[in-house]
Formats: sequence, C-alpha cells, structure tokens
Amino acid sequence: MPKSRAKPLSKEKVQVTFGMAIRARREALLLTQEKVAELAELHTNYVSSVERGERNIGLHNIVRLAFALEMPVGALMACMDMR
Amino acid sequence: MPKSRAKPLSKEKVQVTFGMAIRARREALLLTQEKVAELAELHTNYVSSVERGERNIGLHNIVRLAFALEMPVGALMACMDMR
Repeated sequence: MPKSRAKPLSKEKVQVTFGMAIRARREALLLTQEKVAELAELHTNYVSSVERGERNIGLHNIVRLAFALEMPVGALMACMDMR
Repeated sequence: MPKSRAKPLSKEKVQVTFGMAIRARREALLLTQEKVAELAELHTNYVSSVERGERNIGLHNIVRLAFALEMPVGALMACMDMR
C-alpha cells in the first residue's frame, strides 16, 4: 500500500461519522426521525440506529436517506472525507 | 412525499450504477480486480460481484474501495446523482 495515502477511517468511526452527518442534515431541515423514516421508506428505529452510528448501512438505504434529506448522495457521503 | 422531487433510483439501478463507477475508476488507474481487492482488503470475488452490480455494498466496504481507488468517498458516490 502506498505510504503516502492515509489509512481509511476505522469501522466505528465510519458509522459514527455518517450518523452525525445524517442527524445534522435532518435537524437542519427541522425534520423528525419519524418524518425522515417515512420519506425514506425505512423504519424509525432503523433511522435512529443509523444516527447513533450503530449500522453498517447499505448502498440502497444510503440512497433512500439522501433522497429523504434532499441531498445529492455524493454531497452526503463527502462527510467521510473530512478528518 | 413532495411531488417536485425525483424518485430515487431503483435497487438494481443503484447497484449497477455503483458497479460501473468502480470498474471505470479501476480501469482508469490500470489496476486489476486482484490489486484493488488487495488494497481494499477485500476478496477478489467480492470486488468482481460489486462491479457486476450484484451487491448492496455496505458503508465500510464503500470506504475501503474509495481508499483503494484513491477517490474521495463523496466523489465516488457522486455517480449515484447522475441520471
């Protein structure tokens, strides 16, 4: 592996970072977890656990959440690039 | 759901779109699937199935692949925003 590249974030850090980004965006839109879950067609408990950094969320659900939060997927995922 | 918003991509389209982006980037870097798998610490068969659009890849592995392909995660995921 090239020495010049930073190691990727740890598994835990990845989930927590993503969860924080989801929560921040939801709160900026003044939406409840229930409303985001409804828009994304996901369970409220699932959205809650994603926000708490407890889920290794899959591609489909990332796309659903981005849709519900009115964010381009790329912009939502850019949270993973900030250290 | 607001009528002004486009529906998110279908599950199949999401996986195929992501797989094509991974393959395009890998080929641009002149890397084999074996090399990308090694850099990402994933199995070659797994990388192959992701490229074929057969996987609902999870957040951790998205981050690993972005790392292996020397792409910011946000830039890699921006493929999901092109229709």
